[in-house]
Amino acid sequence: MRPCVVLLSGGLDSATTLAVARRDGFSPHALTIDYGQRHRRELDAARAVARALGAADHRTIALDLRAIGGSALTADIPVPKDRALPGDATPAEIPATYVPARNLIFLSIAAAYAETIDALDLFLGVNQVDWSGYPDCREEFLRAFAGAVDSGTRAGARGGRFAIHAPLARLAKPEIIRLGASLGVDYSLTTSCYDPAGDLACGRCDSCRIRADGFARACIPDPTRYAR
Amino acid sequence: MRPCVVLLSGGLDSATTLAVARRDGFSPHALTIDYGQRHRRELDAARAVARALGAADHRTIALDLRAIGGSALTADIPVPKDRALPGDATPAEIPATYVPARNLIFLSIAAAYAETIDALDLFLGVNQVDWSGYPDCREEFLRAFAGAVDSGTRAGARGGRFAIHAPLARLAKPEIIRLGASLGVDYSLTTSCYDPAGDLACGRCDSCRIRADGFARACIPDPTRYAR
Repeated sequence: MRPCVVLLSGGLDSATTLAVARRDGFSPHALTIDYGQRHRRELDAARAVARALGAADHRTIALDLRAIGGSALTADIPVPKDRALPGDATPAEIPATYVPARNLIFLSIAAAYAETIDALDLFLGVNQVDWSGYPDCREEFLRAFAGAVDSGTRAGARGGRFAIHAPLARLAKPEIIRLGASLGVDYSLTTSCYDPAGDLACGRCDSCRIRADGFARACIPDPTRYAR
Repeated sequence: MRPCVVLLSGGLDSATTLAVARRDGFSPHALTIDYGQRHRRELDAARAVARALGAADHRTIALDLRAIGGSALTADIPVPKDRALPGDATPAEIPATYVPARNLIFLSIAAAYAETIDALDLFLGVNQVDWSGYPDCREEFLRAFAGAVDSGTRAGARGGRFAIHAPLARLAKPEIIRLGASLGVDYSLTTSCYDPAGDLACGRCDSCRIRADGFARACIPDPTRYAR
């Protein structure tokens, strides 16, 4: 089986993406970045998801983005709560939970990992349909990144062409959840909350609200334990 | 003064680049990545250089690339020694000291730092003339990266256009050394050796040999203390 690298955060989307990579015949090598995120539970969730979905390998790499800050997830900036969800329209506003250049950094590290296992396929769980407003979740960015990684790596210099797979890019959250459920993803292992208290999701941050709304619209029971 | 981010390794090239950024009217914010490199002395050198050249700020960010390996600088792979230097021609071979996707990763982190200080200018000390064979030192890569960072960041989504400055890209090592000397760079603070023993450079790795050859051809005394 061809090896690939899957960026695995421990959330719903990346768990589904890992299942898709396996379905598509790849041998998935999962990569989790411990970037000092506020929601540390993600790291445990990523380990559990990698094990449950049969990843060929799973590495967690530390990168101290708190030394830069600039985000509600990596600095002492409040996580927005109780905001309205404007459906599938992407708003112009970029939320405070935007982490500067996060997917650019994560994909770059994924490319480095890929080079060491002779992989050219990188998977990540971004989607541009649901409400996020993150510029680094757009397919336009993924295309531009593929060009940069081809010209800036040994694998590319030797004629390899990287493929950036974002199988969820055009799916809405209920479709993602149905897809993952059909592939056997156990969503009780995943976590989405930006500001959890112990094992409980806050239920009020954007990520909790998008998740809960997605399960409701998919007509699939939400296994998440919310604080309210 | 406009802020910029300068990737500062502690070596000769990045010190010169920092001096060029200052000469060009920027307020340089230096960024050093502690990626688990074999040559830890670089980190101290970077601090000394940032101080001596008056950087507005200097941050060192830890990223554990040893968790990936794949390079003589981040894994237990021998550093090549006593190789012939084929002059200014770039060979097809990529050396064992190639760190997978290093400049892609470093520039991505520099872009993140830039976003937090409202900078759009990134400086790095790559050059494609001298013998290195690293694909991520080519201008083709830098152009492709600029496209990726514009489309994958908040700053880019708001209309900002990043500029990737590689002022040494077309200079040979003697020209770089003469340029830095004219700008007051104290090269005794910098370190280039891939495999130092204490304070002594090995004098035999590619980096030592290119450095020593550069000082000789620039007709400037080499302040480096070599083991032989």
